[in-house]
Amino acid sequence: MSIKHIREVNTQTVTPAGIIAKPDMLVVEEPMEIRISHGVGAARRQLRVAVTMRTPGDDEDLAAGFLFTEGIIPDFSAVMAVKWLEENTLLIELHPGIRVEEERLTRHLFISSSCGLCGKASLDAVQTVSCYFPAPGKPVFSDTQIYHLPTILRIAQTTFESTGGLHAAGLFDAQGHLTILREDVGRHNAVDKVIGAALRNAYPLPFRENALLVSGRAGFELVQKAVMAGIPLLAAVGAPSSLALELAESTGMTLIGFLRGKRFNIYTGADRIRPI
Amino acid sequence: MSIKHIREVNTQTVTPAGIIAKPDMLVVEEPMEIRISHGVGAARRQLRVAVTMRTPGDDEDLAAGFLFTEGIIPDFSAVMAVKWLEENTLLIELHPGIRVEEERLTRHLFISSSCGLCGKASLDAVQTVSCYFPAPGKPVFSDTQIYHLPTILRIAQTTFESTGGLHAAGLFDAQGHLTILREDVGRHNAVDKVIGAALRNAYPLPFRENALLVSGRAGFELVQKAVMAGIPLLAAVGAPSSLALELAESTGMTLIGFLRGKRFNIYTGADRIRPI
Repeated sequence: MSIKHIREVNTQTVTPAGIIAKPDMLVVEEPMEIRISHGVGAARRQLRVAVTMRTPGDDEDLAAGFLFTEGIIPDFSAVMAVKWLEENTLLIELHPGIRVEEERLTRHLFISSSCGLCGKASLDAVQTVSCYFPAPGKPVFSDTQIYHLPTILRIAQTTFESTGGLHAAGLFDAQGHLTILREDVGRHNAVDKVIGAALRNAYPLPFRENALLVSGRAGFELVQKAVMAGIPLLAAVGAPSSLALELAESTGMTLIGFLRGKRFNIYTGADRIRPI
Repeated sequence: MSIKHIREVNTQTVTPAGIIAKPDMLVVEEPMEIRISHGVGAARRQLRVAVTMRTPGDDEDLAAGFLFTEGIIPDFSAVMAVKWLEENTLLIELHPGIRVEEERLTRHLFISSSCGLCGKASLDAVQTVSCYFPAPGKPVFSDTQIYHLPTILRIAQTTFESTGGLHAAGLFDAQGHLTILREDVGRHNAVDKVIGAALRNAYPLPFRENALLVSGRAGFELVQKAVMAGIPLLAAVGAPSSLALELAESTGMTLIGFLRGKRFNIYTGADRIRPI
């Protein structure tokens, strides 16, 4: 991530010893509009699909990941070109063959945005849309591999150290190696960036041999995104929610929470963890 | 908060010493649909304004706070009645005098939901909508009062201890006493619940004599909600974002971050803090 994710500001630190003026680094949070163009010939048109608050950087990944996890594109081959229209407006041009039902889409995005707004409908919808139920018991990670995930992510994360305000998501391979790391002020954006980067880098779908680690809690929407990409294991440094567990259970994913030091909880899918 | 916020699940804790099966408590996360009814006589109709993922409990507060911070109602006197239609569908019946422009509203909610989706438009919009710019230098809190806020919140928070998954928001009076505490899996919901509870309990608008404390980071949308209610001081245990700071600066709020132990950072509005 580049320097534009950080803004230096003046702050006053108050302690019992007195007030000290000092510079501080804040994570930048800015709105980005994601538009798609779709249709054939004269019927081709643009549609605004989201205005999302995100930390600038890896924006093309974010847009690709968002369109994929929302079920708007089946993979990155649907994308013909990516163009910046303005500073914070990104246009994703879809191939003429990709069919977009505008009314259904707007309704869907209204009730089920990627940041936690959602309907019970979504729980059903994601299970209908995703073709990628993971294979039982595959891949298998050792407990030691799991212990190491947060450390690997943290070492790779440089921005977090200086601001304390960024969430991270990391995609690991079956050997426990970090292959993609992305950061954002929003957890859901960090995950969309990871998935979008994988798609843009031609990782074959589904991402069956991977594990996804998130730096905070595991809410429903993060499991939903993992399910869309067929990722069989989601690990979180924090707590999962009840609905996250329900979705993970019903799709056969492994869900790990409170992964800290040499300790973690398996909430479902223990067949993918092999104690050494 | 009642017991329905917590779901007991079976989990396996993995450590180098082995695997121990044990029960764990998860925060419940469930979708709630917020509907309003508006209009006069035969023209009266229902409109779905949000389907939000929330932790059940204080749902009427959440709905009232959401409608207020989104600018749909000016205060709680706009509400005629609150009715559960189904288990997770809450209808807020507005007085016939309250005018709702459906098309504008749907567009607004699409680009600016309460959970972080937002447009640059929102930054302008909130400053136009809010009539409650706080008075400079009022109220004044001592550094000691600020140090104590998180401790007071934590002691009052019972659920958090058992699940680790709930965000809390607390409204304090000018003497530093906690007057309202609400919790939710979503930070923005916890704040909407606090503001909604204040409105339902007839706190006079604007909430000029109050401070709001949130347990996590201070993103743009939390400052936005505080501004809508005229709350002059927002303190966060975590980091603010750059856009949160911009909005706080431009509206004359005090923004405090990294409030931990006897230490905090003032990002803007230092005139409301008096070191002892």
